[in-house]
Formats: sequence, structure tokens, C-alpha cells
Amino acid sequence: MGVNAIVGQSGGPTAVINASLAGVYSACKAHGVQRVYGMRYGVQGLLKEQLIDLSQAFSQPQAIELLIRTPASCLGSCRYKLPDANAQVSVYETLFAVLEKYEIGYFFYIGGNDSMDTILKLSDYGRRIGSGIRFIGIPKTIDNDLAVTDHTPGYGSAAKYIATTVKELVRDSTIYDIRSATVVEIMGRNAGWLTAAAALARDEDCEGVSILCLPEVTFHPERFVRRVKALQRQSPSIVIAVSEGIRVADGRYVCELSDDAMAVDPFGHKYLGGTARYLCGLLGARLDTKTRAVELSTLQRCAAHTASGTDVSEAYAAGSAAVNAAFEGQTGMMVALLRVPGETYRCEMTLHDVHGVANQEKTVPLDWIDAENYGIRGAFLDYVRPLISGELPPLYDRGLPRHLRLNQ
Amino acid sequence: MGVNAIVGQSGGPTAVINASLAGVYSACKAHGVQRVYGMRYGVQGLLKEQLIDLSQAFSQPQAIELLIRTPASCLGSCRYKLPDANAQVSVYETLFAVLEKYEIGYFFYIGGNDSMDTILKLSDYGRRIGSGIRFIGIPKTIDNDLAVTDHTPGYGSAAKYIATTVKELVRDSTIYDIRSATVVEIMGRNAGWLTAAAALARDEDCEGVSILCLPEVTFHPERFVRRVKALQRQSPSIVIAVSEGIRVADGRYVCELSDDAMAVDPFGHKYLGGTARYLCGLLGARLDTKTRAVELSTLQRCAAHTASGTDVSEAYAAGSAAVNAAFEGQTGMMVALLRVPGETYRCEMTLHDVHGVANQEKTVPLDWIDAENYGIRGAFLDYVRPLISGELPPLYDRGLPRHLRLNQ
Repeated sequence: MGVNAIVGQSGGPTAVINASLAGVYSACKAHGVQRVYGMRYGVQGLLKEQLIDLSQAFSQPQAIELLIRTPASCLGSCRYKLPDANAQVSVYETLFAVLEKYEIGYFFYIGGNDSMDTILKLSDYGRRIGSGIRFIGIPKTIDNDLAVTDHTPGYGSAAKYIATTVKELVRDSTIYDIRSATVVEIMGRNAGWLTAAAALARDEDCEGVSILCLPEVTFHPERFVRRVKALQRQSPSIVIAVSEGIRVADGRYVCELSDDAMAVDPFGHKYLGGTARYLCGLLGARLDTKTRAVELSTLQRCAAHTASGTDVSEAYAAGSAAVNAAFEGQTGMMVALLRVPGETYRCEMTLHDVHGVANQEKTVPLDWIDAENYGIRGAFLDYVRPLISGELPPLYDRGLPRHLRLNQ
Repeated sequence: MGVNAIVGQSGGPTAVINASLAGVYSACKAHGVQRVYGMRYGVQGLLKEQLIDLSQAFSQPQAIELLIRTPASCLGSCRYKLPDANAQVSVYETLFAVLEKYEIGYFFYIGGNDSMDTILKLSDYGRRIGSGIRFIGIPKTIDNDLAVTDHTPGYGSAAKYIATTVKELVRDSTIYDIRSATVVEIMGRNAGWLTAAAALARDEDCEGVSILCLPEVTFHPERFVRRVKALQRQSPSIVIAVSEGIRVADGRYVCELSDDAMAVDPFGHKYLGGTARYLCGLLGARLDTKTRAVELSTLQRCAAHTASGTDVSEAYAAGSAAVNAAFEGQTGMMVALLRVPGETYRCEMTLHDVHGVANQEKTVPLDWIDAENYGIRGAFLDYVRPLISGELPPLYDRGLPRHLRLNQ
């Protein structure tokens, strides 16, 4: 059986995906693994034998300290979904040949739904051919939409960034003595976890958002306009948080409601996004109000400078737990975060068969959503608050957070 | 002569405008001023006698510590420009009647160009009617476009936010092994100071931005496309920083280049902004590249959670200096920041007659701009680097930065 380990990162960036990488690397070293390889650009790079030796890559002083503070996938990423092994076995033969060549015994993959599908397919194929390689998945996604795990590393930091930013936007948007509506567009095609985090802004020191629109609930434009009008009678400046994925009753995304001229840029490309812009147009047309659309865009997934300390620790712990599981002989598993019931927040790393995880999607429970009032209930706030707690300040160099960058 | 002081905030928000307010308030207290009033919504609120007693407003524990960490104008703001005193003397009569009623002897106004115009007009009118009130302006604007002063409080924090965010976006945008162009749109209609700050991202640990487009330089779409194409041959993923105010040779803003259908939203409103979106459309149509537009929008002016320590200190010092100047008998002056020549950065507070400040605009010197290469020269980096240095971490409460919010 192979003696070396390999780790890859896949899917979209988060602020803490590299903390999981640091956890895998450090635990492998602690287990005495001789060589820990990183795959560039996930399995897509592995197919092309794009491997690097992480001992060399992380040889600079403070490398691990910098790594856990560096956003986005340090090793590179891909959005490649493995084909079915029965349909295209050659892909698997290539991958396993590379793994054998580098004497890999332990395979770790940090990612979301598609990445767990990769772990599932590789471990199934490995079992079928009698390979001894152990495949373990480490959850990662800002979207928090993975099944089985209480939450996913990456979500807490994105939620903290969103709540922090919304608090600042509320201060910014209420300074003039005029009627205004600021619409903040937040990621999440099908799950409203990130948008719901905007509700954290409301506190003694902040008016918070007045309206939350999650993709779990059908969006009614007329009701929305009436609601804004009513709210502005009480306080003229309001902030609204909307998921990019909200849809109207006929199933179309709100960002698709623009007439054709708008949905296509001047060069003929249809563009997605623009939900906040559309809603600002709607409000401006129907109400006497100033409007402003703010898209948090990719900023919300890479804001390592305001990462959640809890999230960083858990991401690191999830990486370590994956290694420990592999050394205990597990394969085809994903690390799952279990919230231990009790007064004080505590989270344990457990394991779950990837067959029950991959290709599922966890959305915000409907009974946590106060659809009538465009709000979210206390149960969600109790759930999310521990996940944003604590800070891991950047290491600053001449005024800017320092990152780890691999040599190309 | 009046024994009390009044202070107002005007124009757009910054991360440190409240640090100047804290400086004014604390210095007034140190000078033994009995009552320090705040005007709500600038002179517009003053006209309506919307005054608050700051001793009461700041009575909660830690109020001043929170105030200097709270973004946007705590007192509220306005975009009101005083009429000419010869044309509409009644406005001045109203204002001076309110000032007399509250026994105001010292008047402080924190703001940008329009606010200095207010100081100019009020002090001129005051001199004319023989009023003893002393009027002092305190500079504030993220745009850094005020004349006379080396830089303006607010700029350093916005520059630090932009550079921090661009570093994170560079990490985020380079993870896939594909061709991509991320276009970041930064504030600044006529002055490129903020966009130029994106150049700070380039360092040992960051590829930085490949193209900077400042409003000081005419934008040539064809040259721009050729440049992107050439750069992507060397590195497939690039990040581009553009000012919202860039214009083509005939003087039109780039965001106005869209055909009519694009420049108007589905409800018939013409919208500004969209420079990055337009350029992404252009690149997508002409080159084989993925694109993404990111607008930093108002986030860049209110990100107190990553404020520059230097900027906070200077904003506070500018407030104190204004009070000291008033007590020395000055009026019709603006506090100006003077950079003391020498190896180590040092900044002194000086005074400048507002007649030489108001209604002027300072843009980036053309000899600092490398227009041919879409870059900025070292002279700018030497200028800006001290301004982003140091941090003032937020006071966190359950995972989020705490602010000061006045009771309505």
C-alpha cells in the first residue's frame, strides 16, 4: 500500500479552505507521512500529473501561519465532475496510475457537493479494483448547503463578513435625511444561509436589514413593493438583503425578469446576477425613493481579513480529522461537523459515508423563515451566532494582510 | 461672544469622519467648552434647529472609543450647498440666529469641497456682520481630491480597504486554470487616487492588478482590449482596476457607451455606474475569456473594520487642531495635513485659508501615471504607503464590530 498522501481543493473559494489544507498537511506530518503532495487544480490537475511536494511549497518561515490566513484555494481548484466509471473507465485508470506512481496511500479532497461526488466515485472504484488507497472528503463551501454536517467550514467566515459589511452599510445608508432603499445582493442560488446571515446586523447599535428575501420562499414583486412602502413610512432609509437566487411564482429568477434588452449586454451576452439592480429599478419606478444596489459578489467568499476564528479552527480541525480517519482505515467518508447539544457551543468532528452526502442540498428550514414578514426567526440566529465568533487577525506587512502564494 | 461650540458633518461617508468628530469633541472639552452641540444632517439640520447636546449623546461607557470605530457620519450628513449671501441673505440670517440662540462661539464643519465652501461663505458673512464666531473646516473625503492638504482623512482607510480587497480578489480569481479577467470598479469621478491604491496589492505574495485605468487619462477601448489579450498570453487570469469616471476621447463616460437599451433600466431610469460591467461585456465579446465585474460600491467608503491606524489618528488630530485654531482666534480656515520631508513619515496639522481650498479639485499628477503601460509609478506608492499603515481593530461584541449609534 502507498505510503504517501495527496490533497486537493475543488469548487469555489472560501476564506478558510486553506486552513483545512494546513490541517491535512500538519496531521500527515504528525503521522509520519514522508511525502505530502498537493494536486494543482484538483483532480483536473491530477489527471495531468500536476503535483507539488508540499514540504517544499511550505518551507518558507511562517508558511503555515500564512496559509491559514490566505483566502481561496492555494493549490488551485477546478469545477470538474468525474464521469461515471462504467461509461469512461479510462479516466479512472489514468488517475489511479498517477496515484500508484507517487505511492499514494491517503487521498484528501476539500470541497463541496461535487467534490464529495469525486470522493464517492474514487472510493467506489478503488474498492472495485481492490486498491488500498483511502479517500476522505473534507467539507467546504460558503453556501452551507451540504447535507449531514451541522454546517460547513467557510460558511461562518462568509456570514461574519456579510453581517459586518451590512452593519457598515446600514450606517452608511442612513446618514441623509431622505428616503432611500439599499438592496444588498448576496450569494446563494438555492439556499438562503448566506442571505439570512445579514439578519445578524440588527442589534442595539444597528437598525439591521428591514427585509430578507431568501430563495426558499417565492418572491412576489407587488407584495415586496408594498412592504417597502410601509416600512419607509416608519423609517425612511432601509436596507434590504436578497439572495441572488430568488424566484417569482412561475419559477423564473428575479434577475431574469428584465426585458430582453436588459438581460443581454451590449455585446450579446446574457448575464446572470443583477437581482439587486432589478429590484432597485422596480422600487425607483413605483416609489418615491432613492435606491442603491450593492452586490457583495466574490468579496463575500474571500474576505480572509475578517475570517471567523471559530471557522478557521474548525476548518483546520476538519483537515486533521480526515487524516486521522484515513489512518484508522476509513475510506469513502466525509468529515461532518456535529454540534454537541448544550448551553455552550461545542463542535465535534465525526465521519459520514459520502453516499449519504454527495449530490444533496441542504436549504434553510422553512420553519426558521418568517416569510410573511420577510424575516428570519430566533432559531436561525441561535444556530449561526457561534459560527461567526472569534477573530484571527491577519499578519500585516506594511499595512496589508500577508498571504501565502505558491511559486508557479 | 458665544461660549459654546457646534460641529457638523457633511458630504459622503468615510471610515474615519467620526474620529474627527471625536477629536473636535474631546478638544472642546479639554478647552473647557461648556456645551458642544452636534448638528444633525449638517447645515441643513442646523437651519431647522436640529441640534443635539453631544455630552448627552456620548454619555454611554466607551462612547468615544466606539465613535472613532463607527463608519459614516454619526450626526447625519447633507449635500446642501449654501446659496450666495447676496442672493439669499435670509438663509444666513436664519443660520446666525440659531447660532446666537445657542450661544455658539466656535463652529466646526467636517467635510469635502462643498463643506469648505460652507466654511468660506459662513466666515465671510460672519466677518461682514461683525460676528465673533470662528469657523474652521476639517478635511474629509475618501476621494483625496482636496487642494492644499497633502492628503485627506478618509483616503488612507479607503485605500487600505481597496488594496486589501484587491489582494483577496487576486487570490480568488487565479484559482482556476482558465483565462479570466476580473474588472474591479472603484470610486472616483475625476480623480484616480482610489483606483491607484489598487496598485498596492502587488507584492512578493501577490500578482497584483495588471491594468489600472484612471480618470486622468483618456480611455481607448481598442488599446485596452489589445492590452488584455497580450497580458493573458503571459498569465491567463488577470485583475484590472478601473475608476468609475474613465472617459473615452469624445468625453463620454465609459459607462455611457452602452446602447440606449442598456443605459436605461427596465423602468426607464438611466443609471450611472456599470463601467466594469461594460468592460466585461467588451472583453467577453472580443476575447476568449471568462469575465467578472466587481463593484466596490459604498463598501469602500464605510469599511471601518479595516481602517488605517494612521488615518484614524490623523482624522482625530485634525479635529483637535481645528479646535485649537479656533481658540487661537482663527476663522475661515481649513486644517491642512502637511507631510514633513524626511526618511520617516511624519504629518503635521497646519491651517490654510479656505479661500484657496474651496471648489478646487486635486487629481493624480500626470507624471505619476504610466499611461502607456496602464500603470502607476513608484512616486505614488511612496506617497500612499504610509497612509495605509497601522490598524485600529474593532471592538467586537459576539463576533461583530460594535458601533456607536445615536438615539433618533
